[in-house]
Amino acid sequence: MYQHETTIRVRYAETDQMGVVYYGNYSQYYEVGRVEALRALGLSYKEIEEKGIIMPVAKMNIKYVLPAKYDELLRVVTIITEKPDKRITFRCEIYNEQNDLINFGDVTLVFMDVQSKKVIVIPDYIWNRLQTFFTN
Amino acid sequence: MYQHETTIRVRYAETDQMGVVYYGNYSQYYEVGRVEALRALGLSYKEIEEKGIIMPVAKMNIKYVLPAKYDELLRVVTIITEKPDKRITFRCEIYNEQNDLINFGDVTLVFMDVQSKKVIVIPDYIWNRLQTFFTN
Amino acid sequence: MYQHETTIRVRYAETDQMGVVYYGNYSQYYEVGRVEALRALGLSYKEIEEKGIIMPVAKMNIKYVLPAKYDELLRVVTIITEKPDKRITFRCEIYNEQNDLINFGDVTLVFMDVQSKKVIVIPDYIWNRLQTFFTN
Amino acid sequence: MYQHETTIRVRYAETDQMGVVYYGNYSQYYEVGRVEALRALGLSYKEIEEKGIIMPVAKMNIKYVLPAKYDELLRVVTIITEKPDKRITFRCEIYNEQNDLINFGDVTLVFMDVQSKKVIVIPDYIWNRLQTFFTN
Repeated sequence: MYQHETTIRVRYAETDQMGVVYYGNYSQYYEVGRVEALRALGLSYKEIEEKGIIMPVAKMNIKYVLPAKYDELLRVVTIITEKPDKRITFRCEIYNEQNDLINFGDVTLVFMDVQSKKVIVIPDYIWNRLQTFFTN
Repeated sequence: MYQHETTIRVRYAETDQMGVVYYGNYSQYYEVGRVEALRALGLSYKEIEEKGIIMPVAKMNIKYVLPAKYDELLRVVTIITEKPDKRITFRCEIYNEQNDLINFGDVTLVFMDVQSKKVIVIPDYIWNRLQTFFTN
Repeated sequence: MYQHETTIRVRYAETDQMGVVYYGNYSQYYEVGRVEALRALGLSYKEIEEKGIIMPVAKMNIKYVLPAKYDELLRVVTIITEKPDKRITFRCEIYNEQNDLINFGDVTLVFMDVQSKKVIVIPDYIWNRLQTFFTN
Repeated sequence: MYQHETTIRVRYAETDQMGVVYYGNYSQYYEVGRVEALRALGLSYKEIEEKGIIMPVAKMNIKYVLPAKYDELLRVVTIITEKPDKRITFRCEIYNEQNDLINFGDVTLVFMDVQSKKVIVIPDYIWNRLQTFFTN
């Protein structure tokens, strides 16, 4: 298991007229969580793409518990619980400044060769950064 | 069961550098699908809010099958399969111009009193529009 | 001069906690206005890109007069007042259902070769569709 | 004159299929710049709203010089050059990691009483934080 934390400040643009963050905008927060989780491992998603691998999203689910509000500094916890293979699943949990759980969800991405558009097994240079968290 | 269809043209803003619609933007398409499905029943979500009911999202899941591309005219199918009570679930399916399934998912919303922030049973004037589709 | 009109329904996602459309989202409406203005001339921006021309934005200005609200069906008027050369300027005016002017602005784009990233003069096949509106 | 700097990391969601940040998304970066510039003065825009003042945007202009790319850590410079009265203008300049100017623009907001929707002069408690930068 690998776990990482980062923070995101809610932008005005991200609220809606209900006075809270629009339900669809958490996908962006989850994305930031994933990217920073990889960066902390020495992996740049930008460089992964430059090396010819893209990681499209295969599925996502979110459970909404509480609303997040404008200007809150949210804590974004990203967890990889299962050993990735052709797919990698990121569990994401978002907490507000009072440490209340705002929402949580899983996003599963596939590793895909950008030229052939074929799904591939996790590249070695990515797995090398992760394997220490999954040996038993 | 109640089913409705509308179309959405993909905006340039909604694509990302993978050259396809960003995975988080489908939440907006699903929202448009729900709102138009209600409008076709004579129900305006705007008026529902003006009458003091808000409908926050409780959970969402999406399965991504194919990417949608810039300028495609997508067909958004919205289906209410189960009789709503305190919650209402909208199944959404998105198809491209070749009638390929792009993605599908379920979004569950609750009926909430905007003053008390309490969850309530579906208001009568909404149920009255829907009940004909759920009598057995 | 060439003028075109289309309509856009305000999405919930596009509002902010002020209860109106977020000021930054009008850029998307202006984009839709431009794209539909070109389509009405038989020009697909998607195909323009596929032929190797991109049209990045060089400058934009907007004057905000009134707020647009959720679910309003806005009228988007797009006008090309000046003969394009290396640049093309679209004037955009947005009106609400009461025909009040919501905001207006100018967006100037350049024609650019996608390979060389050099600015070029408007391609003939685009100018051919426009010239009838600018002969004197 | 008052000047402030902050940084913003470009999200994948903010790119478009041209492979760069969508032209309309800089409005959000400018917003973050303004809010952080005020916060550094001890002013929370959230609290300003809670005290009954909203600050809608009256006009905006942007000149685009270079594209910003995915994952770049942009430097957002926000400057108040003129003494505010009923209006306040924020000059914003965005630089990439090579210190190239990406774009720059001015956003003018008005001070408005949220109840009466009337434009008002800058409230004293805001001006008190700014006046030291404008005395001559």
